[in-house]
Amino acid sequence: MSKILRVNMDERTAAYEDGPEGYKLLAGRGLTSTMIHDEVDPTCHPLGPNNKLVFAPGIVTGTSAPSSGRVSVGAKSPLTGGIKESNAGSSWPQHVARLGLKAIVVEGQADGWWGVHVTKDGVEFFAADEYAGKSLYEIFPGLFERFGRKVGIAAIGVAGEHKMSMAGICFNDIDNRPSRYSGRGGLGAVMGSKGLKFIVVDGAGGPGVEIANKELFDKGRKKLADSMRSHDLTKPGGALNSYGTAVLVNIINEAGALPTRNFREGRFEGAAKISGEAMAEFCETRGGVGMMGHACHPGCIMKCSNVIPNPDGTEMASCIEYETTWALGANCGIDDLDVIGKLTQMCNDIGIDTIEAGDVIAVAMDAGLADFGDGEKAIEMLEAVRDGTPLGHILGQGTGFTAKAFGVVRSPDVKGQGMPAYEPRAIKGIGITYAISTMGADHTSGYTIAPEIAGVGGKVDQFDTDKAALVRAFQYTTAFIDTSGHCLFIAFPILDIASGFEGLVEECSGVLGVEWTGDDVTRIGKEILDKEIAFNRAAGLTPADDRIPEFMKYEKLPPHDVVWDVPDETLDAVFGEA
Amino acid sequence: MSKILRVNMDERTAAYEDGPEGYKLLAGRGLTSTMIHDEVDPTCHPLGPNNKLVFAPGIVTGTSAPSSGRVSVGAKSPLTGGIKESNAGSSWPQHVARLGLKAIVVEGQADGWWGVHVTKDGVEFFAADEYAGKSLYEIFPGLFERFGRKVGIAAIGVAGEHKMSMAGICFNDIDNRPSRYSGRGGLGAVMGSKGLKFIVVDGAGGPGVEIANKELFDKGRKKLADSMRSHDLTKPGGALNSYGTAVLVNIINEAGALPTRNFREGRFEGAAKISGEAMAEFCETRGGVGMMGHACHPGCIMKCSNVIPNPDGTEMASCIEYETTWALGANCGIDDLDVIGKLTQMCNDIGIDTIEAGDVIAVAMDAGLADFGDGEKAIEMLEAVRDGTPLGHILGQGTGFTAKAFGVVRSPDVKGQGMPAYEPRAIKGIGITYAISTMGADHTSGYTIAPEIAGVGGKVDQFDTDKAALVRAFQYTTAFIDTSGHCLFIAFPILDIASGFEGLVEECSGVLGVEWTGDDVTRIGKEILDKEIAFNRAAGLTPADDRIPEFMKYEKLPPHDVVWDVPDETLDAVFGEA
Repeated sequence: MSKILRVNMDERTAAYEDGPEGYKLLAGRGLTSTMIHDEVDPTCHPLGPNNKLVFAPGIVTGTSAPSSGRVSVGAKSPLTGGIKESNAGSSWPQHVARLGLKAIVVEGQADGWWGVHVTKDGVEFFAADEYAGKSLYEIFPGLFERFGRKVGIAAIGVAGEHKMSMAGICFNDIDNRPSRYSGRGGLGAVMGSKGLKFIVVDGAGGPGVEIANKELFDKGRKKLADSMRSHDLTKPGGALNSYGTAVLVNIINEAGALPTRNFREGRFEGAAKISGEAMAEFCETRGGVGMMGHACHPGCIMKCSNVIPNPDGTEMASCIEYETTWALGANCGIDDLDVIGKLTQMCNDIGIDTIEAGDVIAVAMDAGLADFGDGEKAIEMLEAVRDGTPLGHILGQGTGFTAKAFGVVRSPDVKGQGMPAYEPRAIKGIGITYAISTMGADHTSGYTIAPEIAGVGGKVDQFDTDKAALVRAFQYTTAFIDTSGHCLFIAFPILDIASGFEGLVEECSGVLGVEWTGDDVTRIGKEILDKEIAFNRAAGLTPADDRIPEFMKYEKLPPHDVVWDVPDETLDAVFGEA
Repeated sequence: MSKILRVNMDERTAAYEDGPEGYKLLAGRGLTSTMIHDEVDPTCHPLGPNNKLVFAPGIVTGTSAPSSGRVSVGAKSPLTGGIKESNAGSSWPQHVARLGLKAIVVEGQADGWWGVHVTKDGVEFFAADEYAGKSLYEIFPGLFERFGRKVGIAAIGVAGEHKMSMAGICFNDIDNRPSRYSGRGGLGAVMGSKGLKFIVVDGAGGPGVEIANKELFDKGRKKLADSMRSHDLTKPGGALNSYGTAVLVNIINEAGALPTRNFREGRFEGAAKISGEAMAEFCETRGGVGMMGHACHPGCIMKCSNVIPNPDGTEMASCIEYETTWALGANCGIDDLDVIGKLTQMCNDIGIDTIEAGDVIAVAMDAGLADFGDGEKAIEMLEAVRDGTPLGHILGQGTGFTAKAFGVVRSPDVKGQGMPAYEPRAIKGIGITYAISTMGADHTSGYTIAPEIAGVGGKVDQFDTDKAALVRAFQYTTAFIDTSGHCLFIAFPILDIASGFEGLVEECSGVLGVEWTGDDVTRIGKEILDKEIAFNRAAGLTPADDRIPEFMKYEKLPPHDVVWDVPDETLDAVFGEA
């Protein structure tokens, strides 16, 4: 049975344990949220000695299951004050899983900066002061040099050292760039508070993932892979593969739901210039290292990442996601993809979440610190974050915090976390999702955009407010997907293709030696949400925190001139707390 | 019957109304908290259009009752996110009461800056842009020139214009200085969010306060005044009159409960140099305008305010309270009374709460922005607040905010509001008070220091943790005193002298034409607290917010090496929510 590895930063010791019997079927988000629920005092200070940081690969991570190189990272969030699970795609969790580890739990706090090197032979600590204060792009090559080109690296940048709530945890991509992020919720600050700069993992020689029922697993894997290869969004040469997630820019803009200039408008006149199509054109016309269809981890079918080239063909940034080009583009009134690329690269280099970064720049612009569209000022703001100036310490703490600092009422956040790239006033289901998510404003907690905009899993009216049941179903299913170790984008094929969904359940059942059905997906998802909600309630979050900001109730959003009009009762009904 | 004056900033109109029958016996805090509870959506943005700001004199304010020139100001607080009542002593509420007004309610939001001039003839608005961005000491003389030397002025400084959560509302003192403050909770920011810079009130020719039973009132007034004149703390020539509130410095220091260097220690080696005794010596040896025994409003018996002179006898600062000399002194490691005077004067000039100011400077020092004891750097920090630099926008938002900005876990706040001058680890009752107060960390919500340290109203052990009942009794009685319009310091004589307490009840009964007893004091206090708690719960505050910061549970406080060890059950038992 796979082990839990506990890393104690107070003493710089490590210990392996079996974990309770009840954790046997848990992995990914199911495991991180359970451990945070079970072991962390909900009222503890997120950056104090009593918070813990849990890294867990999903159920099928480290196997040949498609698009399953996901890691969940859990802790009490310094951004939201509640529980946090933030996941990323990388080879890193595949290394962890191959070592027979179901989780790495970081506890306590060290003075100075440390790294941890985990191999089949055990755990070694190494002094990391020499890496502190430096850019991630600067230090990653040296780390791979030192520990081997095939290891996985989890790291924080200077923002995590500064203990900023927009600091993410960075993982290597397929080319060993520091570019894949558990970005949201300030988990990088939690890692920083522990004095931990890196976790280097080398899966070589590990026992690998035990698969209890190989036949069932293979059957499921094939069904799921087939569904991914046949769905228009996820298939090779499909929308995501060709244009990346930023294929959404024009679609969401057309729907009048692309938040523009700090959520003042729902349509951006420069949308086409920052879209996935524009990125593909850069890759084609500029050439060089530019490419769409890049994979964030080995074994991905969709390959929706990208490497965007400079005019001279050298690398500008990787990856510019839909959320990223929106956050640093439309939301700041910036329509120049080269500026967005520069900002993206800075975020990856500093170690911050691009969504939160775009939100705080836009709020600062709204506060009068710069004009909307001023790319140079936006770059200066990220430099302030990097350098830890007072302005950087404001922006670095996230959207709600930045708005409060400057007395800006138009703060597009829930529980302090900045909203992603979909306007709640124009797409009600995603607004309900932002409001009630245990994670703060988070589209990945239940991507209702699928039916509301993309017509995946049926089609519902974007303005319809009666969506408590829809949101609930997405919350539960997503919690399961986050537990399985798959990329959330398997949601597209499994919503539309029944055998794909069966394949997901069979894969997981095969690994664990159980016989789950679709009902178990909902049951397991609900169990996870129940624990997360219980943690948040004990931490002091209430239904009053499960709300869309007040200004959206009285400021009409162009072009549809809509306000937030979903009754509070609908919000409270999602998880039955009405 | 007295009227409620509503000032609408959207339209810049004013209207008088009788108010509901149920408000007939309400005044001061009882009225502000009731109106906020009844009229303000607890989930509204504190700086948005839906918050309201209510000013209410107490029951006996404007009469000849001793030490009764108090005004309560209420709103939803941008500092705590909950309800706020912050009161001050000034002639201002005496003017309001003499106009037959029981409250002035400010609603809506204007562009630009405005003043309001209230007289017996009605309300006039005047453009106030010319006063914006200037120091209060600079503009007060011109305002008195313009509106008459005998008016009362309520104003905000630049901090309120900046919408900072440590911005208070400033009232004139007896010499028309801008030095008396409803300091706590950011009510100056609420006033700033409404575009309101001043409320000038001239009570001349008003109907005065109606006294229903003059005989009972006079009887009560005499009893209360006699008790104040005979109690050692409050009598002329007594401790407060001779040394001001800062007479407490040496006493609390001796008790090991004077928070020092951001609550790292409980005893300050420089205490004597910043004490009330040291202030009295300045007044005596430096002479000039210096004086102890200054009154903050006409009709005060205790006269515990002061004017501290520069070495050349000119005015340095007025007033340096105990809390002020602690906050800007011991808590910052500063033992130079001249520096503390300079900082005090800056706070009054900028329009900020001295307690919050000292707390944020100390937190910033703890974060490494300056060494403890560095007065010049402390001055620079207040300059940053004044100038609205990014650092100023951090500090200006209060203690919890500043700590979060810099990732400081040692944040001495409750509900975001910085703790006052008494260490909860060393004096448990005041710690319980900080935790459960509806106002955030607030000693004036129930001054249990009286029995815990001063031996007033009995004597209890400072370290005893079993004080839920004591704290509850103080909460209820204080809410009544805050409603009566008296200075909180009448608590000393009425705790020790039965006839003083009778006098308080009789005075209020005389004005209102009722026949209250001691039981009514508790009943009324409880009714007020119940409304405040209900507001806070609906705003999203929970028992998890009614807690002392976690670091105090594991960091031992010298010299007694005590931690915060009051069980959560005790906290929840104060208001029976266990």
